[in-house]
Parts: sequence; C-alpha cells; structure tokens
Amino acid sequence: MHTAKSLIALSAWLGLQLAASVCLCAAVADSTAVEQWGVFEVSLRGPAAGNPFLEVQFAAEFRRQNRVVRADGFYDGDGAYRLRFMPDAQGTWTYLTRSNRAELDGKAGEFTCGPPSKGNHGPVVVRNTWHFGYADGTPYFPVGTTCYAWVHQGDRLEEQTLATLRAAPFNKLRMCVFPKDYVYNKNEPPYYPFERTAAGANDLTRFNPRFFQHLEKRVKDLLELGIEADLILFHPYDRWGYKNMPADADDRYLRYLVSRLAAYRNVWWSLANEFDFMKEKTMSDWDRFFRIVQESDPYQRLRSIHNGAVLYDHGKPWVTHASIQGYDFDKARTWLETYRKPVIYDECQYEGNIPRRWGNISAQELVRRFWLGTAAGAYVGHGETYLDADDILWWSKGGVLHGESPKRIAFLRKIIEEGLAGGINPMNDKYPVAGLEGRYYLYYFDAHQPAEYEFDLVKGGPYKVDIIDPWQMTVTPVQGTFEGKLKVKLPARPHLAVRIRKAE
Amino acid sequence: MHTAKSLIALSAWLGLQLAASVCLCAAVADSTAVEQWGVFEVSLRGPAAGNPFLEVQFAAEFRRQNRVVRADGFYDGDGAYRLRFMPDAQGTWTYLTRSNRAELDGKAGEFTCGPPSKGNHGPVVVRNTWHFGYADGTPYFPVGTTCYAWVHQGDRLEEQTLATLRAAPFNKLRMCVFPKDYVYNKNEPPYYPFERTAAGANDLTRFNPRFFQHLEKRVKDLLELGIEADLILFHPYDRWGYKNMPADADDRYLRYLVSRLAAYRNVWWSLANEFDFMKEKTMSDWDRFFRIVQESDPYQRLRSIHNGAVLYDHGKPWVTHASIQGYDFDKARTWLETYRKPVIYDECQYEGNIPRRWGNISAQELVRRFWLGTAAGAYVGHGETYLDADDILWWSKGGVLHGESPKRIAFLRKIIEEGLAGGINPMNDKYPVAGLEGRYYLYYFDAHQPAEYEFDLVKGGPYKVDIIDPWQMTVTPVQGTFEGKLKVKLPARPHLAVRIRKAE
Repeated sequence: MHTAKSLIALSAWLGLQLAASVCLCAAVADSTAVEQWGVFEVSLRGPAAGNPFLEVQFAAEFRRQNRVVRADGFYDGDGAYRLRFMPDAQGTWTYLTRSNRAELDGKAGEFTCGPPSKGNHGPVVVRNTWHFGYADGTPYFPVGTTCYAWVHQGDRLEEQTLATLRAAPFNKLRMCVFPKDYVYNKNEPPYYPFERTAAGANDLTRFNPRFFQHLEKRVKDLLELGIEADLILFHPYDRWGYKNMPADADDRYLRYLVSRLAAYRNVWWSLANEFDFMKEKTMSDWDRFFRIVQESDPYQRLRSIHNGAVLYDHGKPWVTHASIQGYDFDKARTWLETYRKPVIYDECQYEGNIPRRWGNISAQELVRRFWLGTAAGAYVGHGETYLDADDILWWSKGGVLHGESPKRIAFLRKIIEEGLAGGINPMNDKYPVAGLEGRYYLYYFDAHQPAEYEFDLVKGGPYKVDIIDPWQMTVTPVQGTFEGKLKVKLPARPHLAVRIRKAE
Repeated sequence: MHTAKSLIALSAWLGLQLAASVCLCAAVADSTAVEQWGVFEVSLRGPAAGNPFLEVQFAAEFRRQNRVVRADGFYDGDGAYRLRFMPDAQGTWTYLTRSNRAELDGKAGEFTCGPPSKGNHGPVVVRNTWHFGYADGTPYFPVGTTCYAWVHQGDRLEEQTLATLRAAPFNKLRMCVFPKDYVYNKNEPPYYPFERTAAGANDLTRFNPRFFQHLEKRVKDLLELGIEADLILFHPYDRWGYKNMPADADDRYLRYLVSRLAAYRNVWWSLANEFDFMKEKTMSDWDRFFRIVQESDPYQRLRSIHNGAVLYDHGKPWVTHASIQGYDFDKARTWLETYRKPVIYDECQYEGNIPRRWGNISAQELVRRFWLGTAAGAYVGHGETYLDADDILWWSKGGVLHGESPKRIAFLRKIIEEGLAGGINPMNDKYPVAGLEGRYYLYYFDAHQPAEYEFDLVKGGPYKVDIIDPWQMTVTPVQGTFEGKLKVKLPARPHLAVRIRKAE
C-alpha cells in the first residue's frame, strides 16, 4: 500500500490521529477477547465495486499503554474486509481503523488479551545467536520437513498429510504459497492465487480470496499441530505465470500475503525456494522483497531465503537465519561465525529412490546428515521422495511417510531436547562436536570407529558419558563419572555419537 | 657425485672415453647374462681406507648399438664396489667403468640380455595420461597399501608381512627408507642408515651398507611378489636425526640410494611422506631433491611427493603422478585435468579403530572411498590401523591384516582389470563415473539409491549392464542389451555400482 497514492492517504490519516483516538465507535471485531499470541480479527463491510485490491487502503493501529502496533487489513472478496492482529502482551488493547473509504475508516474498539492456552508458546524468534526459542521462553529446536505443494492437493490428501504430521517428529514445514509444476507435480491446483479467465490468463490485479482462505486454513491446521509454517513466497517451478510477474504485481502480492498471514504466530517467511534458479529476478528484486516483507510485517516473523546453486548473502540485515540447500557440513562453522545467525540446512537431499540425485539418498545417509549438521551447531531438514504409483511423493504433495529416517529424526530431536535449553554451539575438535564448554558435548563420529578416544574437556566435571547409536536409537551410559581428560572405551563401530554432560 | 671436485674427475673421464671404448679388459660382472628388466651387477674391489663414500667416484656407461646409458656405482663396505644396471632391451650390451681410482677405472665387459622371465613385465610407467602400464604393455592399475616401517622390524615380522602380501590384493607398497618414530612405533630399527657411535651420534658421511643391503633384499622380495616398492625418501617422524640433516648429507643420501636401488624395476621414488610437515625443509629443498633423483636415475623411475596439509605443485615437470593425502574425491577431476598426470589418493585414512581420526574409518567407508576414487578416474591406497597388544599395526609395521576391506579391494581390482586395458578416465554425469565414451562406464552411486536411472550414453551400443554390490562382492547382469538411453531398474539400495560395457 505504499504507492505514491497511498502516501497521500497516509498523510491525511496521520492528521486525523488525535481526533480518532478519542472517538468511541461501535466495536466491529468478531470477538472481544483473545489469548496472547492468538489472532484478533476485525471484520468490516466495504466497497465491492471497482477493484478493491488496488483502490482501497485499510489498516489499523493497535494500542496498549504506550505501545502502538500498526497492521494492514485486506480485502477478502464479496465486500468483506478483514484485519488480523496478534497481541503479544496480555491486557486491554484498543484499536482504530483507517481507510480511504468511509465504511472502513475510524472504526475503533477494544479487546482483552488473556493468557495463552496450553501449547501456545508464542512465535519462534532467534535466540542465543545460533538458535531459536518460543516467545514464552520455551526452547524451540527446528526439525523440519518439506511438502512443497501440499496445500494444492485437495482436502482429502491434505487431511491425510495433517494426520501424518500429527504422528511425525517435525515441528517445521517448508511449503510453497504458489502451486508447483515439476516432475511428479503436474496436477492443477484446486485454487489459483489470482482471478483467471477460462483460457487461463491471470488478472494479477485481483487476488482470489478462496485461494488465500484455503492457505490460511492449512497454516492454522499446522499451528494446531505445533508446526511452524515456513512459507515459500516465490519459486521457479511454475507454468501459470507466478514466477515472472511484473514488479508491481510481485510487491502487491507480498503485501497482501503479509496482511493476511502475518498474524498467525507459526508463520515464517522464506522468500524463495532456489531463488537463483528464478532467472527472471535480480538480486535487487530479492533485496526489495525482503524489505517489503520487513516493513509490512508488524511482528517481524523469521525471514530467510533458500538457494539453488548460489548463496544469497545471509549477512544482510533483513535475513534472520540462513536457509541452506547443501550438505557440506564443514561449512557450517564458517557460516555460523560469519553470519552470527542460526543456520538451517533446510534441504540436504531427500530420503527416497527417484532417479534424481537430490531425491534418492538412503535413510542411513539422511540420518547421518542430521547428525553431522547437529554436531556442527546447525539444524537440518527432512524430505522424502519414494516413487509412488500415483506420484504422491511426500516432499511435494504430502500424504504418508514411507521412510526409515523419521523415527531416527524423532530420536535425535529427543536427544537435542534433553540437551541445553539454549541450544548447542559449534565447538572445535577432531570430530564434529557441538555443545557448551564444561557443560555439554555432543560428538558424532560418522564413518570413524575408534575403539577408545580421549576427550580433552575443560576442567570442571565430573562428567557423565553416553554412547548413542543414532540408527539403533539406543543410549548406553558409560559406567562411572569422568574429569577433564576422559579416556573412554568405544564400541569400534561407525556412525555412533557420544554425549558428555556435566553430572548434576 | 656432482660436487665441484667430481666435475673435474668427470671432465678427465670424458677425455678418456674414446680410448676406453676399445680397451678389452677382464670381465668383472657377477654373470654374463641377464633377463630384460633384470639387474646386471658389476662387482669390483677398491679402496677401503679413508672415506670411500666421499672420496671415490665410480660409474659406468652401458652401450647397446647407438644407445648409451650411464649408471652410478656405489661403495658397499669392506672394499667392495658395486654397480647395478637394468637393461631395457634384449641383445648384447657392453660397459666400461670410470673412476678416480685405478682399481675401479676402465673395467670393460659385455653381457647378453635375454627375454624376461614369466611374470617380469618390466617397470611401470605412466601411460594414457592418467594411467600406468608395464613396459611390456601389460596394464598396471595401482592398488596400493601402506607399511611405512616394515623393513625396520626384524626378519621374523618382515617375513610375516611378505607372507601376508603374497595373499593380499595389493600391487604397490608405500614404505619408508628411514626408520620411523611415532605412535605405535617406538622400537629401534635393527639397522641404521649411517654409521653411529655407541652414544647414537650419526656420522652422516658414512653410510651403513648393511642397512641398505637389507633394504634392497626387501625391495627384491616385493619384486618377486609383483609389488611395486613406493620408496619414501624422507619423512617427519624421526628421533635419530634423519629429518634434519644438512643439505650436503641429504643430497649424498639421495645419490647413494639411487645408485643402489634404481636398477630394481619395481622401485618408485616418493620424495616424502607429508613433506610439508618437515619444517626443516623448504620448497626449494624439495625441488632440488626431485632434480637430483631425476638426474641420477638412469631409468626415470616414477617420482611423486605426498602431502600433509599442503599440496606440492604436482604440475612441476619432475613429478610423474600426483600422490595425494585426502579423501575429497570431487577434486580428482580438477587435478586430473590440471596436471594431466595420474592421481593416486595414496592416503585416504585407514581402516581401523585407533583414537586418531586418520586411523579409524570403517571397512565400509574405506571400500566406499576406493569406489569413489575409481569412479573419479583416480586410484586409491589402503592402510590398516587396528589396535594390537604388541603395537603391530599393519600401516606401519606390517604383520597380518585384520580388516574387512582387503577382500573388497581385491574384488574392485578384479573389476578394474576386467575393464579397459588403457584405464578408465573421468567422465561427467550426475553420479561419479569413469570410463571411455561409447565403450565402458563404471558408475558408483554412493549413498544414493535410485529405483531406476536413465543412463544417457552416446549412440553406439548395444550395451550390457551389470549391477555391482561392492560390499557383497556380487555382479548381477541386467537382462538384455541397451542402446543410447538406458533406463535401468536398480535395486534401490545405497552403495551400489553399475557397469556398462559395449556388447562385443
């Protein structure tokens, strides 16, 4: 909404602020109470004629004591206007709408923000440089999976995907906003993001509210499962024209999406999948997209961008964490030290058996990569690509999981969650190890199989030692406690991990 | 022998050439017949007083038709002087000695070089840019192992090592000339290369002939087993003073060693193990050592140098092939294309269970690395480091093999030998593959497990396809023959190879 025209509207709006703040208008909200980090929604009727997506500005300011948060509303079709807001503090909030249309302007109200319900820990934010946490202080260690186009498969398959996720170890899901056209992904989506003619021509000036309503429903479904929705805003695998829209359509799309979705606390913004494979976009386009999201989002949700062959500069200030396609875990240390941000290997190839090289690593190899990434102080993401008679591959369409890695990833997640609440940092030794000096060490020995190893830890112990088999999913305590230099007998088998914790 | 003083002697010697060539002196050789690529030896008595190692020059020219080959002789102690020569062509050879001492000078003779005996294929040379072959045209694919200090262990263990090698798949052995001081290697050697005082001081001007006689015996033992002796001339693991000799002692040592050993057709010169860990030497020292070996060796045996953390520039003209410590097989292609020489990953870590990271990879991992290297168009070397109550680890002392990799390496060697006589070259595909376009392809799928793959080969076929399990050591032919694009069903298990050959 920050076109030249809207700047004029904004100036007028600012002039009305003082008067508006004392105006007592009728409440227009769907409810007058909301939990902390929940979504408070304002619904209004407004103009349906012309092109509301282009012509109507609609926003509101939310206030609690001295805090003011501005959020944009959006047109939801059929004369319906909505505005969503996530209160981040308990107590009484007031709001006042502003619009260039009288029906939407100057509407004020208030609501009470109460305590969060069970399982609501607030949004995930970056914490301790290289890690994440929920807003209420609960640790959050990302263990993601990938279902790029799952929201474009129709309700039956989508419900099955949700049922699978309910029983799976994943707490983050990479998913595209736009439909996908790629191998094993040739089906038409049930909904399109823009109005279309029968011949398939897009009207890029008119969003399709049903598309976004459906997307939101799925984001809320994930929220209820405790899963972060890592929304991919652009991607190159497209036959409908979404990868090469003109700049004004791109920018309008970003603002519309943010206005609809930012209030959901489980939303993350992933600017692109394989941004560098989108030859229609330049680096300055990507920078602009980041800044648009950054300035539009009242909550500063996590922002990242995923690479194909070329890395984006994750040091740029609007990037909250590095989202990496790759599996060179030796680079994690450099990136962690350079960016001083969390690093997620969101795509390190997938467990599966398709001919494509990125989609046929063994379960053993994917589990190995999870451990390598973890022991590098980074995070790793899952995907699965087993051939299917109906082309339903988890990595894109969802459905059910067939692989052997998820239960081992669940085991690793448990190990991580039993570890330090603040996360484990990259450390320096001959084998991959992450932890916190004097407190916690998680070694992964990969193809190495020493019969014994002398762990040269800082003075401080005593330490307890566990030998972990990531594939067998066993934790075997080593008898006794250790100090400083720990010479530990090991099973002389490859692909084991060793956990060393300061004895309480 | 190329000191200023010896240059004067050389000038005098050249002046005598014409006269000498018609002199008919008594034969002084140990025999008058030798097989092609065998060793013809001249023995003479000469001065034992003073320091013959410094004071006596002794060489000979060998002639057959228009060819002249000069070789240096050496002092073997107790007044014995020897000169060894490997004739590379059958027929009658004559020779004439030259020395600055009358007893050794002007001795002439002739001998007959007959056909090589069974199993004698001549020395190994570089062939087809990236490969090797015996001089008689027989293919030679290096499959090496490592017993750094095996010749310093005493006869009992050394004989056991030879017995092990007799049944093992290796046709090259990396071994140090000098004794070794390192973990698991603290024993004194039976022989020292230089005269020593009782207190252990070296007389670097006096070689110990018994040391070299013993070394030669072991090199000959390897020759009889068909094993190339990849002799390591310097190494950093030393407590006796051989790693930091002055330059004149280094140079004299190199010339003495070459004069004694170059005639054995299975000798390769490896200038160093981990040259860059020898902080006493500079790069110009290494260049000089190469040039000394190059100018002293009448046969131009293979020359390489093995790195620690920093690569020597294998592009330098005196390097015949790159000897690599490392296991990044993705780099092989670059090196092969840059150096245009064979690349041997002579040390890619060892199967074993010791605490050191380089000595505890699993058998599976070492076999995997052999296949990765082979499918990169390079060669790979073996080593084994299992803990032993008596500290007898194969990698250094020899003895017996305990591991699970050698029989799989034997299997791979068989696969390679069944392939192209000229060797298989690096190729370009999504998976590691080496071969020759239209004729032969050896793919290795590593952790990838496609259920099918379309091999896009050049037109030409028909091709036959085999699925190879490197660990189970099975070769399973795929039914039928294929043309051009081969869509092949694969077992969807990791760590398999696929061999594609043009049907005869």
